[in-house]
Amino acid sequence: MQATATFYEGDRRISVGVCVPVPPGPGQVQIAVSHCGICGTDLHIFHGVMDKRVRMPQILGHEMSGTVASLGAGVSGFQIGDPVTVMPLDPCGNCPACVAGHSHICQNLKFLGIDTPGAFQSHWTVPAHTLHRLPPNLSLAHGALIEPLAVAYHDVRMAGVKPGDQVVVLGGGPIGMLEAMVAQNAGASVLLSEINPYRITLARSLGFEAVDPRETDLVQLVMARTGGAGADIVFEVSGSPAGAKVMTELLRTRGLAVVVAIFGQPPQVDLFKFFWRELRLQGVRVYESEDFAAAIQLAAAGSLPLDKLITDVRPLSQLRQGLEEMEQGDEVMKILLEI
Amino acid sequence: MQATATFYEGDRRISVGVCVPVPPGPGQVQIAVSHCGICGTDLHIFHGVMDKRVRMPQILGHEMSGTVASLGAGVSGFQIGDPVTVMPLDPCGNCPACVAGHSHICQNLKFLGIDTPGAFQSHWTVPAHTLHRLPPNLSLAHGALIEPLAVAYHDVRMAGVKPGDQVVVLGGGPIGMLEAMVAQNAGASVLLSEINPYRITLARSLGFEAVDPRETDLVQLVMARTGGAGADIVFEVSGSPAGAKVMTELLRTRGLAVVVAIFGQPPQVDLFKFFWRELRLQGVRVYESEDFAAAIQLAAAGSLPLDKLITDVRPLSQLRQGLEEMEQGDEVMKILLEI
Repeated sequence: MQATATFYEGDRRISVGVCVPVPPGPGQVQIAVSHCGICGTDLHIFHGVMDKRVRMPQILGHEMSGTVASLGAGVSGFQIGDPVTVMPLDPCGNCPACVAGHSHICQNLKFLGIDTPGAFQSHWTVPAHTLHRLPPNLSLAHGALIEPLAVAYHDVRMAGVKPGDQVVVLGGGPIGMLEAMVAQNAGASVLLSEINPYRITLARSLGFEAVDPRETDLVQLVMARTGGAGADIVFEVSGSPAGAKVMTELLRTRGLAVVVAIFGQPPQVDLFKFFWRELRLQGVRVYESEDFAAAIQLAAAGSLPLDKLITDVRPLSQLRQGLEEMEQGDEVMKILLEI
Repeated sequence: MQATATFYEGDRRISVGVCVPVPPGPGQVQIAVSHCGICGTDLHIFHGVMDKRVRMPQILGHEMSGTVASLGAGVSGFQIGDPVTVMPLDPCGNCPACVAGHSHICQNLKFLGIDTPGAFQSHWTVPAHTLHRLPPNLSLAHGALIEPLAVAYHDVRMAGVKPGDQVVVLGGGPIGMLEAMVAQNAGASVLLSEINPYRITLARSLGFEAVDPRETDLVQLVMARTGGAGADIVFEVSGSPAGAKVMTELLRTRGLAVVVAIFGQPPQVDLFKFFWRELRLQGVRVYESEDFAAAIQLAAAGSLPLDKLITDVRPLSQLRQGLEEMEQGDEVMKILLEI
């Protein structure tokens, strides 16, 4: 049996080729991949930033949906044809983080699709413990959005967003947009800050108040909205020094800054403001199993406008074009590849 | 009636003189001051850093004990001669922070002894709501340590220190030392990092493990102590860029950095590490009424070696000398003035 796959080969090269699907070993499942989204992390890898971590030729992809194709020995609870998605984390189980119950940020974590082959191939073999069943009423296109939606759900859950909270999201890419949706769904008032006009328009079409912080004084706006108190929670999804600066200016006393973005360089942070207003900060990363379960439930309930986030659905062979469009970045939210 | 007082007159000038004690108005109490400690904030003011905030000639001092000398109209619950200390905060009651229940960090907070005359005078008049009664078995010298002890109690309470926690305190001045005591009293293992040899020796004489981070690799030590997990809680009391850097390296997954120090300049903070290990940060400032009550109870129980923190007790006229010794800083912890 041969299968189609795409490979990252370093130096911005993506090749489309064939591979022999890995038969599922004990405790593993092979999935016939249906859809797989292109993530910002895939773009980072394409840019060569993670060349020391990936093993070329590397099959990327981890935001996926599919159906069970084959079960390894000892796997129960799934049947051939079951629609599934994968929580792409393989923790060691033994490190202090795992022992403390934080296996999603295991100190030796293998991230499927980065540290192992990913889902940009027709048949993907993964540990059975990573599988989450998709309900029949959820399309497989939406199923490929569960992974980023689980990120957003995790972030909103860790932040403890409550009805009536004033939430500010700094950065309106896919994760920021999903956080805005989940926070609004949890009863918060959401203000989104973004500089890309396409994303601002999209956010507004989804019913969010969205502003360009170069045109609107964000702090003044939030203070006006909150009677001078400040925001309850700010999600920093921009990864920019400007975001790290403004987050402390936006918060109410004891408000919470949630660091979602990956900061390549340590930015200056106004620790005096943290002291002065007893602010809090919480780093958040990936998701736990309950976040995947909640994201599936939320998506299946149909109350989030997920369709609007899907810019296009393309064949697997267009991975390279998709990465290049994301790179230019002007009018892209989420590109799915159909496999 | 005349009373002795000391005045900060700007430009490092301290004068000793007389003043007419303010008679207590409605809702106020006049206290015959017994002891008043010199705080780092008094030293900042002496250095001119807060010249825009204080009104010269300014009577400083806010870490005090004394006995009730006179009651204003409408004050009940206290009698002449009652030993008391003062929680030197006068919030507005109307701002968003007050309305949210965080009146100790009121957005228009008056800090007694900075924004109003302080306790370096023989008779001090304050709002009755600031008074906390001292138990008869607590010496008035120890009573003057309640304010900094309440800071430490607040910080440890906000941090949620639990028995068995590995705590690191960065900076062994009076507040760091009191936090170490309170955290240890709460059942934590405490490691103190300090560069001043006098303070290291003092900390060791109090039974703490204390190291000079220029001689000992702090991260390596904490990882060895915790089986590679990292510290549960780090109190950043140094206010240094080095402290802001190492705090993220010391923490376990989801560990907590508590920002106690006043950072004059925003330091670089490794927000990637916050993301990667889901670290938390909490700014803490002053205290709430329950912290004062708990600090009094803790001091009265006699289980903290508070005596060891008192470097000397001097007459009020030696405020200037006390400030200068703190400035040189080599062999000073807490200087009390007896009034």
